[in-house]
Amino acid sequence: MRSEVITVETGSAPAVRDISAEAHAFVAGETDGLLHVFVPHATAGVAIIETGSGSESDLWRALDDLLPADDRWRHRHGSPGHGRDHLLPALLAPYATLPVVAGRIMLGTWQSLCLVDPNTDNPTRQVRFSFLPA
Amino acid sequence: MRSEVITVETGSAPAVRDISAEAHAFVAGETDGLLHVFVPHATAGVAIIETGSGSESDLWRALDDLLPADDRWRHRHGSPGHGRDHLLPALLAPYATLPVVAGRIMLGTWQSLCLVDPNTDNPTRQVRFSFLPA
Amino acid sequence: MRSEVITVETGSAPAVRDISAEAHAFVAGETDGLLHVFVPHATAGVAIIETGSGSESDLWRALDDLLPADDRWRHRHGSPGHGRDHLLPALLAPYATLPVVAGRIMLGTWQSLCLVDPNTDNPTRQVRFSFLPA
Repeated sequence: MRSEVITVETGSAPAVRDISAEAHAFVAGETDGLLHVFVPHATAGVAIIETGSGSESDLWRALDDLLPADDRWRHRHGSPGHGRDHLLPALLAPYATLPVVAGRIMLGTWQSLCLVDPNTDNPTRQVRFSFLPA
Repeated sequence: MRSEVITVETGSAPAVRDISAEAHAFVAGETDGLLHVFVPHATAGVAIIETGSGSESDLWRALDDLLPADDRWRHRHGSPGHGRDHLLPALLAPYATLPVVAGRIMLGTWQSLCLVDPNTDNPTRQVRFSFLPA
Repeated sequence: MRSEVITVETGSAPAVRDISAEAHAFVAGETDGLLHVFVPHATAGVAIIETGSGSESDLWRALDDLLPADDRWRHRHGSPGHGRDHLLPALLAPYATLPVVAGRIMLGTWQSLCLVDPNTDNPTRQVRFSFLPA
């Protein structure tokens, strides 16, 4: 298994960072198998959505309703409402698996692989790509 | 890796389509490994739930509350409220992985593999099954 | 593929049970590959979150808002509001995949693998671990 950790800058605002290009580059030259994506953080997740048409900000609007960034949470440290950041990975899991055929990720036309990071206190994140040949 | 795309009719109403039978047929004759399920669409997801006892309509009731199909979303085209369809894959990921032992998917008694499609504008969907022997 | 089912006691109250130790023990001695976690139940899911700082009870607070345990659901049997238990696996999938390098699960410092069980009628649960060497 080839496994590699990349660094992704997510900045100091909630971010949906499209990492499809990094994923495509990682599997280039492989044959068939599974791409495994893993975020080794407790306050970030992965989503496969369309980017560039407004869904990034729509996702924050939805998450702000579903997991309000207020003081209701027991888990408290860092920025106000940070407890909800710790729940995000329960809804948006920190892993994803994608099929690779002949060195190409079989994403649909409108799908992008995204790192979703609500945490404004950690501007730099890691993502582990692993390729399982099969 | 054996990988195959099937076509699933989801019709013109929001659909929870049980595709367990198709998945079982795909792995029949295999030995041990992982079944990977992937939906190459930006407005559909996968859920593993019990079917036939009301949870399909309960799921739409829940999703209509969690992601209302109204005009709050920036991503706008097609049917009214379509922006929420683009958020569904963030909550119900477009992939799933299932263990296969001796050619049988190890689903529990009450579990079914389902394609969840809120999008009334796309009555025909694709699902990619891949088998990773191990 | 090495595959094994363990039994986890979740008791008669909604439970977030940290099963990281069991997962680490399962892959000890392996080399590189993927750990697959699967819950063969229709009313339980998996979450990878930080434990021990309040997020377990925060998760129930969130889930009680997102999927209320009341009589709105069509799927009815067992305890009142049980229909929502059947929706939990749509939001918290009953599977997870984790990268293993040199026999160690590459979880981040603050991440724990958890079985999430809202169902008070089933105090004993099963979890299947499978290791795919690669």
